[in-house]
Amino acid sequence: MSSQPSTQPPRAVLLLSGGLDSATCLAIAKSEGFEVHALTVTYGQRHPQEVEQARAIANALGAASHRVVTLDLRAIGGSALTDDIEVPKDRPADAGGEGSFVHEAGESAVPITYVPARNATFLGVALGLAEVIGAADIFIGVNSVDYSGYPDCRPEFVAAFEAMANLATRAGIEGTRFKIRAPLQFMSKAEIIRTGLSLGVDYGLTHSCYDPTEDGASCGHCDACQLRKAGFAKAGIADPTRYA
Amino acid sequence: MSSQPSTQPPRAVLLLSGGLDSATCLAIAKSEGFEVHALTVTYGQRHPQEVEQARAIANALGAASHRVVTLDLRAIGGSALTDDIEVPKDRPADAGGEGSFVHEAGESAVPITYVPARNATFLGVALGLAEVIGAADIFIGVNSVDYSGYPDCRPEFVAAFEAMANLATRAGIEGTRFKIRAPLQFMSKAEIIRTGLSLGVDYGLTHSCYDPTEDGASCGHCDACQLRKAGFAKAGIADPTRYA
Repeated sequence: MSSQPSTQPPRAVLLLSGGLDSATCLAIAKSEGFEVHALTVTYGQRHPQEVEQARAIANALGAASHRVVTLDLRAIGGSALTDDIEVPKDRPADAGGEGSFVHEAGESAVPITYVPARNATFLGVALGLAEVIGAADIFIGVNSVDYSGYPDCRPEFVAAFEAMANLATRAGIEGTRFKIRAPLQFMSKAEIIRTGLSLGVDYGLTHSCYDPTEDGASCGHCDACQLRKAGFAKAGIADPTRYA
Repeated sequence: MSSQPSTQPPRAVLLLSGGLDSATCLAIAKSEGFEVHALTVTYGQRHPQEVEQARAIANALGAASHRVVTLDLRAIGGSALTDDIEVPKDRPADAGGEGSFVHEAGESAVPITYVPARNATFLGVALGLAEVIGAADIFIGVNSVDYSGYPDCRPEFVAAFEAMANLATRAGIEGTRFKIRAPLQFMSKAEIIRTGLSLGVDYGLTHSCYDPTEDGASCGHCDACQLRKAGFAKAGIADPTRYA
């Protein structure tokens, strides 16, 4: 709602999970000249330390602000991340080796770690914040190359959300043209890591594991750990992650 | 995710605020044969009693379940309903008398009680629940006749959300065709009230006021009270609301 003099950098909202992808996305948004306002949505997932890691990343990479919004999706459940469902371990990567996984006959291509409609909901909260602070650009670190097969990481979802966003808001009908920016969309995990390193991301601050130990070490066996490990290996860079 | 035998009624998710419109919407969904699962999102708005009223309405109208999800939008603010901003009172209705309000020069047509991107976010939560319980239909009591000028109550928003929903979810890519149902979209407030009464809605359980007194009486002067009063008057029906 606030307007800014044209000498100020444009504002952007960025969804920050504490993971590798969203940290890289923050570094990219900064490198493009945005004043970045980070937003972490906690949704009853298993690891409250992720919020503290997100805060450390926001500080280290120079976010202008960092807000935490609580949305308790445990009331809905339906995911290994919000319900009492086991996180799958050591799923074999498919032959292409590009970060997707082999599926058994009859098994959904979308894994049980998918949180129903998560990105649609999180982007809704980000859109509200963008409207309040006068930002038109919303960054999200979704990726459709080295990923787990989540429907709400695909470019067609991002485009449909953007179209909806411009009809959902006062700012949209009063002339703001919201853009959902997904700069990692077509990058491999190795490319993401190389890009982040060139922009000064400290991946030791980031966290990918779906099922860490009590003291915060990564399991090394869930889909997220497997994708992360393979990404560092392919990038030829030492993985700073502490595995259990 | 669960599938149901065809002899069971289809499931639907319904966003239930505790107000007149969503209560009527629940009665309509029931009359169309749905097993209705009600969802109330509390967002740090001023009136916690709205949740209890929503629960009473869900019980009275035979909802199969009622869930409450907390999303604290006060971390974002930007609305008279989530921030320390005065609720406007006694705004003059426009000449058409159809529930919109006169605006001063330079004033936004969207009032300060608009909560940024609220319906986009709430429908995102509803979409997640629909996916978890195996529902394809999502009801929302939005209306673009007797309303306050909110962008996210318009039919073009509802259509854009539906398109996005079918790309955002595992159920969508596996064959479910989500429908966002807004049966009140083109009804006047008087028509909504007459319809609800014909379906057994007890409007004494519902609540519209943006700024009630401590003991729950309605102020009688905010936009929501004015629209409600005019609706009962035009319908020729006694208004059961307790005004301060």
